[in-house]
Amino acid sequence: MTPLIQILDGPNLGRLGKREPALYGTTTWDELAAACRAWAQAAGCRCECRQTDAEGELVGLIHAASDGADGLVLNAAAYTHTSVAVRDAVAAAGIPVVEVHLTNPAAREDFRRTNLLEDVVTARVAGFGTDSYRLAITGLAARLGAGSDES
Amino acid sequence: MTPLIQILDGPNLGRLGKREPALYGTTTWDELAAACRAWAQAAGCRCECRQTDAEGELVGLIHAASDGADGLVLNAAAYTHTSVAVRDAVAAAGIPVVEVHLTNPAAREDFRRTNLLEDVVTARVAGFGTDSYRLAITGLAARLGAGSDES
Amino acid sequence: MTPLIQILDGPNLGRLGKREPALYGTTTWDELAAACRAWAQAAGCRCECRQTDAEGELVGLIHAASDGADGLVLNAAAYTHTSVAVRDAVAAAGIPVVEVHLTNPAAREDFRRTNLLEDVVTARVAGFGTDSYRLAITGLAARLGAGSDES
Amino acid sequence: MTPLIQILDGPNLGRLGKREPALYGTTTWDELAAACRAWAQAAGCRCECRQTDAEGELVGLIHAASDGADGLVLNAAAYTHTSVAVRDAVAAAGIPVVEVHLTNPAAREDFRRTNLLEDVVTARVAGFGTDSYRLAITGLAARLGAGSDES
Amino acid sequence: MTPLIQILDGPNLGRLGKREPALYGTTTWDELAAACRAWAQAAGCRCECRQTDAEGELVGLIHAASDGADGLVLNAAAYTHTSVAVRDAVAAAGIPVVEVHLTNPAAREDFRRTNLLEDVVTARVAGFGTDSYRLAITGLAARLGAGSDES
Amino acid sequence: MTPLIQILDGPNLGRLGKREPALYGTTTWDELAAACRAWAQAAGCRCECRQTDAEGELVGLIHAASDGADGLVLNAAAYTHTSVAVRDAVAAAGIPVVEVHLTNPAAREDFRRTNLLEDVVTARVAGFGTDSYRLAITGLAARLGAGSDES
Amino acid sequence: MTPLIQILDGPNLGRLGKREPALYGTTTWDELAAACRAWAQAAGCRCECRQTDAEGELVGLIHAASDGADGLVLNAAAYTHTSVAVRDAVAAAGIPVVEVHLTNPAAREDFRRTNLLEDVVTARVAGFGTDSYRLAITGLAARLGAGSDES
Amino acid sequence: MTPLIQILDGPNLGRLGKREPALYGTTTWDELAAACRAWAQAAGCRCECRQTDAEGELVGLIHAASDGADGLVLNAAAYTHTSVAVRDAVAAAGIPVVEVHLTNPAAREDFRRTNLLEDVVTARVAGFGTDSYRLAITGLAARLGAGSDES
Amino acid sequence: MTPLIQILDGPNLGRLGKREPALYGTTTWDELAAACRAWAQAAGCRCECRQTDAEGELVGLIHAASDGADGLVLNAAAYTHTSVAVRDAVAAAGIPVVEVHLTNPAAREDFRRTNLLEDVVTARVAGFGTDSYRLAITGLAARLGAGSDES
Amino acid sequence: MTPLIQILDGPNLGRLGKREPALYGTTTWDELAAACRAWAQAAGCRCECRQTDAEGELVGLIHAASDGADGLVLNAAAYTHTSVAVRDAVAAAGIPVVEVHLTNPAAREDFRRTNLLEDVVTARVAGFGTDSYRLAITGLAARLGAGSDES
Amino acid sequence: MTPLIQILDGPNLGRLGKREPALYGTTTWDELAAACRAWAQAAGCRCECRQTDAEGELVGLIHAASDGADGLVLNAAAYTHTSVAVRDAVAAAGIPVVEVHLTNPAAREDFRRTNLLEDVVTARVAGFGTDSYRLAITGLAARLGAGSDES
Amino acid sequence: MTPLIQILDGPNLGRLGKREPALYGTTTWDELAAACRAWAQAAGCRCECRQTDAEGELVGLIHAASDGADGLVLNAAAYTHTSVAVRDAVAAAGIPVVEVHLTNPAAREDFRRTNLLEDVVTARVAGFGTDSYRLAITGLAARLGAGSDES
Repeated sequence: MTPLIQILDGPNLGRLGKREPALYGTTTWDELAAACRAWAQAAGCRCECRQTDAEGELVGLIHAASDGADGLVLNAAAYTHTSVAVRDAVAAAGIPVVEVHLTNPAAREDFRRTNLLEDVVTARVAGFGTDSYRLAITGLAARLGAGSDES
Repeated sequence: MTPLIQILDGPNLGRLGKREPALYGTTTWDELAAACRAWAQAAGCRCECRQTDAEGELVGLIHAASDGADGLVLNAAAYTHTSVAVRDAVAAAGIPVVEVHLTNPAAREDFRRTNLLEDVVTARVAGFGTDSYRLAITGLAARLGAGSDES
Repeated sequence: MTPLIQILDGPNLGRLGKREPALYGTTTWDELAAACRAWAQAAGCRCECRQTDAEGELVGLIHAASDGADGLVLNAAAYTHTSVAVRDAVAAAGIPVVEVHLTNPAAREDFRRTNLLEDVVTARVAGFGTDSYRLAITGLAARLGAGSDES
Repeated sequence: MTPLIQILDGPNLGRLGKREPALYGTTTWDELAAACRAWAQAAGCRCECRQTDAEGELVGLIHAASDGADGLVLNAAAYTHTSVAVRDAVAAAGIPVVEVHLTNPAAREDFRRTNLLEDVVTARVAGFGTDSYRLAITGLAARLGAGSDES
Repeated sequence: MTPLIQILDGPNLGRLGKREPALYGTTTWDELAAACRAWAQAAGCRCECRQTDAEGELVGLIHAASDGADGLVLNAAAYTHTSVAVRDAVAAAGIPVVEVHLTNPAAREDFRRTNLLEDVVTARVAGFGTDSYRLAITGLAARLGAGSDES
Repeated sequence: MTPLIQILDGPNLGRLGKREPALYGTTTWDELAAACRAWAQAAGCRCECRQTDAEGELVGLIHAASDGADGLVLNAAAYTHTSVAVRDAVAAAGIPVVEVHLTNPAAREDFRRTNLLEDVVTARVAGFGTDSYRLAITGLAARLGAGSDES
Repeated sequence: MTPLIQILDGPNLGRLGKREPALYGTTTWDELAAACRAWAQAAGCRCECRQTDAEGELVGLIHAASDGADGLVLNAAAYTHTSVAVRDAVAAAGIPVVEVHLTNPAAREDFRRTNLLEDVVTARVAGFGTDSYRLAITGLAARLGAGSDES
Repeated sequence: MTPLIQILDGPNLGRLGKREPALYGTTTWDELAAACRAWAQAAGCRCECRQTDAEGELVGLIHAASDGADGLVLNAAAYTHTSVAVRDAVAAAGIPVVEVHLTNPAAREDFRRTNLLEDVVTARVAGFGTDSYRLAITGLAARLGAGSDES
Repeated sequence: MTPLIQILDGPNLGRLGKREPALYGTTTWDELAAACRAWAQAAGCRCECRQTDAEGELVGLIHAASDGADGLVLNAAAYTHTSVAVRDAVAAAGIPVVEVHLTNPAAREDFRRTNLLEDVVTARVAGFGTDSYRLAITGLAARLGAGSDES
Repeated sequence: MTPLIQILDGPNLGRLGKREPALYGTTTWDELAAACRAWAQAAGCRCECRQTDAEGELVGLIHAASDGADGLVLNAAAYTHTSVAVRDAVAAAGIPVVEVHLTNPAAREDFRRTNLLEDVVTARVAGFGTDSYRLAITGLAARLGAGSDES
Repeated sequence: MTPLIQILDGPNLGRLGKREPALYGTTTWDELAAACRAWAQAAGCRCECRQTDAEGELVGLIHAASDGADGLVLNAAAYTHTSVAVRDAVAAAGIPVVEVHLTNPAAREDFRRTNLLEDVVTARVAGFGTDSYRLAITGLAARLGAGSDES
Repeated sequence: MTPLIQILDGPNLGRLGKREPALYGTTTWDELAAACRAWAQAAGCRCECRQTDAEGELVGLIHAASDGADGLVLNAAAYTHTSVAVRDAVAAAGIPVVEVHLTNPAAREDFRRTNLLEDVVTARVAGFGTDSYRLAITGLAARLGAGSDES
């Protein structure tokens, strides 16, 4: 059966295209979600996308993905650096999780070097802009054994 | 009058029994809540139980307990290590608060050694599995002067 | 046109007047909001006030202020010390932001010395009790070029 | 057969009732020992109590408990924060060990936050005054499967 | 009687208007002092202004203000970050002291995050440029109960 | 013209397939290089591969890539964590550089959390095993505007 | 009545005169004890001297001094830097305690800069060689209001 | 010939008797200087006293003492914790220097634990109030071989 | 004359063979002592062995060895990491001291990386199991110029 | 016109030739100043020399040099390590500043490794004794485009 | 068959006998290599010796030893403290590795306390001068079960 | 005889003129080497220049300079911050070594503040661009007593 990849985006990512476009580009979140669905299809998967600013809701969405999806692409944004709750949810997810970032957080403020997810995720992609999502989906699909034009 | 003990559980604890059973056991949160009610009764108290993944909601539930309950048993889970907001709410609660943990967090990752609650709670119990809740309720009931078979 | 100043208060501030009055005074949050509206009018501005215990909701309110207000007075309370999400929202706000505190957090616990907002806000006022809000509104109004009796 | 619980108290605890009563209460060590024996009986166990100011003697008493007791309730007092020797003895004990404190050490000086035992003990109880011992004995008895009125 | 507010400025502030105008503006120190006198009058106070580059002289001026003034507005500049002597003088002043900065030091070099005054001053204002002095005088006057047009 | 991607592998990677296969898999370095050439072709690029254990030689190879290639995929292995010389060469390269790792170094020893390259590279991929190279080449090719079946 | 001053010396001090004479001088411990008795008499006090290498025994001797002496002169030697147990005993002593050292520990190894006693003792004398004891006794006697030729 | 002891007091000590009397007592600096002269005479020495708030002047006074006095009793107050200049002057003094404090700085704020003088002075006395000066003079006189009633 | 080597073992080593045999082997302390005597004889030395759990007693035994033995082989176990008293005794011993460990402490918990002896001992052997003692005796004998079959 | 180089020396340098000659040589400050004038002339410049022990005066002298000289050679001595005021004055000077030291401070105490000037000066020379001044003047003259025999 | 022990020496060790003889002795590297061969023969082993100043070459030599030798005696010298590449090669070697040092590095500079090899080697010998190699070979031979006169 | 000065340049310096010209200028390494030879001649010395990217080769070149040159001018570039091997070679060189930098590394990234050479070199010059080499050669020549027009 076609594997399901859940895409989850954390706080402030709903402002994509409006927030600091010099840093994050002009693509909106809706356009990114549409692109993800296309990339997933090209990689032989289905894909659902959600965004939330709330830590507790993000935790709940990870729980739901654990129960209903085959893999997770997670851009926890600011919660990457502060949330033990998100970390605990990821660590218990039981499905492969790929951490993804538009920019390269290491090239920014010092406190972004604290990363509470990096040692519980399966793999990581950062710095390719929105193309980071395409690579994450492609790599995750390969890992899930999805039939795709690229594998 | 019979004292009321509020039990509050933080993020991911609603997954009890499903999340990492090797570490946390197979009891579900509903079963734990039922057991708490029985233990409270045995200790001469009433008891209410709530669980939330959201930091802001947990803060609000502590406010409500401050106004309506006689004592609080709190397992803030991940927020134990990151939430100044929860700490501020506990520090202002005006009722005795017992911190409780299923496992012994000190025996786990380094960042779990940062505990923002430990110096504002009244007492602490950790490492007895679900039995930690029984001991916390028992000790809190004694402090509240509840009539019980054990005191 | 009359500039609009948004006042945003973070976790536990809804308990103002009830929580630790020796430290925070007996004015309630509703009274503070009324005073802010009066101070803003005196300074030639309009003003709206909101309080929330939830980090995600606070992030959303900052987004809304970015879109609809001319300046922001922010008392993020506990999130001042822990929230990269709030910081990211402030950094992207595109309007002047004044950080405000009732007390002087530097005179309290060590962990309150970590301040994730202090280098992305425009200006800061602390330690005048509720009068901190008056000064913040006054200074922000001057910066926004509002017509007032004081300038 | 009735399980044997060893109670071991470390340095300065022999001064209980004389040393800083505002902090530690007026119960003497002999009275505490008598109470422990009663609580153990109520929980279906036997119990022996010893106190020593000397690190080396405490190490030897833990060795003896390893050989002759079924569980250990340990209040290592100051050695909790400084003794690798006591830690090594606990780690090698081969029986469940419950760490107990009258007060909540986390609410005191910074150097008491260094705890060399916390990750080798089975469980922990702190902050209930002498009642901490009752809860520790009760929880340990349950773990040892002792017949008691409470379980 | 009309309260007296002492304004004290520390090292390099005599260069105001000449030193790094992009950062500190083009107002000279004499112009700032004149403005302070006007702001104080508007707030129902008298005001005296002094500037010195020398730590020991600044300590002596704080002693004099302790004896002869009702409140102190202090911009200790570089000594904010290095002087225990200035801190000791402030801590012993016995009158309210408001720390003031033209810019927001937190947004600059790391060593400016060490602030030896922040926990002994009464209140703080930073980041409004020279308007920081107006807000500090206004807030201090209110605290001193001065008759003013604004209160 | 077809863009040229240089692949550079650092110390111990020549042992691939022999060194700790449980951690790094059984693919040898020669097999990985062949796969990279195929992946590059699929992405519309040419690709050359080199491996060296020597820091100075790796620096020289980065210089050469700066002069002759259009992009660089770099797995500096141990030198990621210790080499300022490699960092300086990368920072001066003048072409996009993608950092790649077979495993997720963050999930390993503490000293692997020091990463001297992470803030000078363009993008990063880690944790997909040898598939990390495919994704890095794919993403880099897209950035270089290479004609490929995937873009 | 003539006040009693207890002199307590910690580990290795029994070797005085034999151990590193270039650093500690050639006076033996017996000679130092005799000198202390003479100095105490000159200051209008009685004085008793004890030395032990054992931390637990030193704790017990402080307990005894708390019960039977009017003041304590303590050279805890190595335990100054490592013993929370000795600190706890000093903090609970209820009599004035003067910390004394032959040499100036601050001028030696870094780990001697950690001093667990310095903030619970009443006063401190260091660096006068054996004369440190004379000054400590003299100062303590004055504090105890002893009749002496010097006061 | 009668040895000359120079007494030097640093910033804020001129306020003695006025500044925080609960902490520092009611003796004024002039009274302390008079007492020092008497104590010096009793110890067979002459004594001169100076106080300054200025770091540079204190450095110069230490130079003068190096040239004209036989020993130095130094209470550098705040400069104890911050002044490398004072330290350099002390280290080059070529005469014995006794560091003296009225209170026990170790029992106060953390930044007072940084002591730049402690490893270049000859000896130290702290915590006896003004009696600290008597003991310092007495000990220094003995070291200088002064004829006194006490030696 | 035949040199005398003193072997001293610290806390918990009397449990050798009983304590964590997977880590420390099944040889008992008595068997190890016997082996040491044989190894010493083979190296042309005499040898005496003592074990104690008490820090103060270990200090005294080092004093005794300083007076009566030609070299010391010391396994201070836990006191290696915590005891300044043992360090002071070793530093003053005046005979060569070889630090010995059964396992490689560096491969264990972080706090075992603090080693208070390592810079005052003459040489070190670790990680060969009980054979560590044979090598330490052999090396020490060579240094003492003992006649042996191996030198 | 002939460029003017200001030489400024900080605390304790007036003692040159008297203070620790083994470390700093026997040349006095007056002799050094004369040599500087000769070296400046040889390099086609004029040169003025000043020394002060006072931080505030040094700040003022830097201000004066900013207004009247073409370049500054600064040996801030102890203030190099502690003075943010001097740093601020240097950062605002608007003329090239060369930091100079007689010795190599890095080879001395740890606290001399904190250097508050090193990142705001133009260039640095250290460790050549008084010849450091000749090289600093030579290099600065070249930068100022002075006519000299060496350029 | 006779086991083969590889001896590998790192940077600067080729200067043995020339470099700082007061610290390292007068034996040259060639003489040490000859002695090692004799000691290995006495212990029933064969032995080969190599020295290199280059990190990458040392890594390659460890690879070669992994493939062709039965055990490794490694003195990585400076690379002990800085090389993750050498550490990775040792960790993957698959044969017992004994770390050896001529002196006791712990008694030297602070940065030599960082040891990247200590937790991946099998055993360690330090401080016996060139005799350290004899003991390392002897201990390694015993572990390899070599026939020798000593085992 | 004419003294020989060896110039040694470390990693990436061969790229001089090509690498980041805005930071390092447009002079190539060959041009710099030619200039050095001219400056050395003017200072009465001979001079040889070498550059290498390899740490091990740099170590060997320092060994060679120790044997054949009278002084060393060393720009270790990146190895300044990471190489204990280079430090060890410098410390054992037995000839004066002047550390030289084109730019002022202190004004750059934090990790460049770690300098492993600064306390073993004789003197240091930084921040004059290529003129740093002229000053280093001039100062070293003076120290070697070379006949020159400048001395």
